Amino acid sequence: MAASNDIKTTFLEVYSALKSEILEDPAFQSTPDSHQWVHRMLDYNVPGGKLNRGLSVVDSYKLLKEGKDLSKDEIFLVCALGWCIEWLQAYFLVLDDIMDNAHTRRGRPCWFRMEKVGMIAVNDGLLLRNHIPRILKKHFREKPYYVDLLDLFNEVEFQTASGQMIDLITTLEGEKDLSKYTLQVHRRIVQYKTAYYSFYLPVACALLMAGEKLDNHLVVKNVLVEMGTYFQVQDDYLDCFGDPKVIGKIGTDIEDFKCSWLVVQALERANDDQKNLLYDNYGKEDKGCVEKVKKLYHDLDLEGVFAEYESKSYEKLISSIEGHPSEAVQAVLKSFLGKIYKRQK
Amino acid sequence: MAASNDIKTTFLEVYSALKSEILEDPAFQSTPDSHQWVHRMLDYNVPGGKLNRGLSVVDSYKLLKEGKDLSKDEIFLVCALGWCIEWLQAYFLVLDDIMDNAHTRRGRPCWFRMEKVGMIAVNDGLLLRNHIPRILKKHFREKPYYVDLLDLFNEVEFQTASGQMIDLITTLEGEKDLSKYTLQVHRRIVQYKTAYYSFYLPVACALLMAGEKLDNHLVVKNVLVEMGTYFQVQDDYLDCFGDPKVIGKIGTDIEDFKCSWLVVQALERANDDQKNLLYDNYGKEDKGCVEKVKKLYHDLDLEGVFAEYESKSYEKLISSIEGHPSEAVQAVLKSFLGKIYKRQK
Repeated sequence: MAASNDIKTTFLEVYSALKSEILEDPAFQSTPDSHQWVHRMLDYNVPGGKLNRGLSVVDSYKLLKEGKDLSKDEIFLVCALGWCIEWLQAYFLVLDDIMDNAHTRRGRPCWFRMEKVGMIAVNDGLLLRNHIPRILKKHFREKPYYVDLLDLFNEVEFQTASGQMIDLITTLEGEKDLSKYTLQVHRRIVQYKTAYYSFYLPVACALLMAGEKLDNHLVVKNVLVEMGTYFQVQDDYLDCFGDPKVIGKIGTDIEDFKCSWLVVQALERANDDQKNLLYDNYGKEDKGCVEKVKKLYHDLDLEGVFAEYESKSYEKLISSIEGHPSEAVQAVLKSFLGKIYKRQK
Repeated sequence: MAASNDIKTTFLEVYSALKSEILEDPAFQSTPDSHQWVHRMLDYNVPGGKLNRGLSVVDSYKLLKEGKDLSKDEIFLVCALGWCIEWLQAYFLVLDDIMDNAHTRRGRPCWFRMEKVGMIAVNDGLLLRNHIPRILKKHFREKPYYVDLLDLFNEVEFQTASGQMIDLITTLEGEKDLSKYTLQVHRRIVQYKTAYYSFYLPVACALLMAGEKLDNHLVVKNVLVEMGTYFQVQDDYLDCFGDPKVIGKIGTDIEDFKCSWLVVQALERANDDQKNLLYDNYGKEDKGCVEKVKKLYHDLDLEGVFAEYESKSYEKLISSIEGHPSEAVQAVLKSFLGKIYKRQK
């Protein structure tokens, strides 16, 4: 525990350094008002999450280096890459909250709901996104993998925005016709919207920094995208069946008409009467409607279906991982899997 | 005229090719619904403008090549770079319209006001932005200047978003205290929000494709940023004093509390009574208020101030341009200046 607290302390110190650099960026002559605005906007949106994605770049890089001591420079750089992912996440969340008309995030009001912010939050989202290439240019411009880093962030961002698009369009269509929610559609949304940036991107950053070429690691990519899919299925499951005290929020996927793994599984298994029940009650704010959907999930034994899915996924992932020729890479992938397998929150 | 019509036809053909590539991008497996969505979104937002920025990449490149015939490949590539700027412009406009709560754009409803679009337009803006690195990667990955292109687009986008931020914040502050609108603030907003991407970026793209290093062309950058500033001052002037039939819209900068060059000049020249008149009437929808502000502009002879500014700017720009050692570069800059000097629309 001590070691992992240390790394979190270091990681947060690097945040402060990166923030200062952004505020003093010679490409933009700040005014006192804009300096203060960006400062406050960054502190509100970037560092307040669990930092799992960012820290996992550091963890992965250490495992790839197989216990060799890292220089001070190396530690700074790997933390900076981790923060680029946290900045990317902040950018997505600020804008997603506007699109979803959300109220709270991380237990506080969404940024766009803050006084005087409003729709300026759209531009703040863009600024967050624009800070990533500024960080990369300042610290990685002379590295042989600089252009690969830029390509990687560009590709993953494109995939995430594309995933968000199919999610938004599917919900539009699904509200007219629930049968548009299929396992295939669910899988595609999750893969693009979550798996690439949350699971593949951290490891890909670590691989690049360790001198690897990503084209040689397509198996690693596939395993991580599978893991990301499994992670999102857990998320969908916990939204309904998790303990609100443990997961820290009350799930509203049913009310929100989400294309959740649970509703997709229910549609696959429901008879005509049960389908009609879903059509009539899914996506309604009314507590009675939500309860009917939850009872149907229980009647269809989705808890059992999930337990089966969970163990099958685990077995498949482990066997893919153990087929990998590099023990260091195996360690990276197993570390990720260990963190999420059978998680309750 | 025939020649320039030809180039516009070619330019539009390249748009169709780029759109097809984006719709078939292997990094994202499209669904029929999402394919249709992106197709419609691109056609609505990307090609409908005057295309000045995009076409000026082509013009500039031709001048840099001093009349040498361009190969088919070269023409395609230089048009593709032009379209990247048009895509960037589309991305800014889609999101700016949301932030400004605008109604129309290019004589049609803003994209976010279209049925079923709404806040999905935020993500569409991101998609437009994400298409730029996809185009660059597909067509320029193997070019020696690829990484410089990525850096260039990243830097200019950062500057534009930063300019938009000071514009938004200044308007917030200005609404409480009009004296926050100063010549210095106006200049900074214009430089970052408009000049870099509208004037510097097209020429910088052409220079890179012609094999130049941008670090060797800081003078060109400064001249273009000055020209962009002059262009925006014209815009502010025409908003009030232009002929609506010629400029194609009725200006609303006074009603909208814009940090316009005119209000800034008025504040510089007004006595206490005139300042009070501005404080009381600027930023009001009421026609009487708008008329009072316009009369004040006239009383302060802002037409004369503008005419003086216009000829001074022209002289300074010409003398900077003529100091440049390369005749081809001079031709590029003079071509730009010729297009905007004393424009009425």
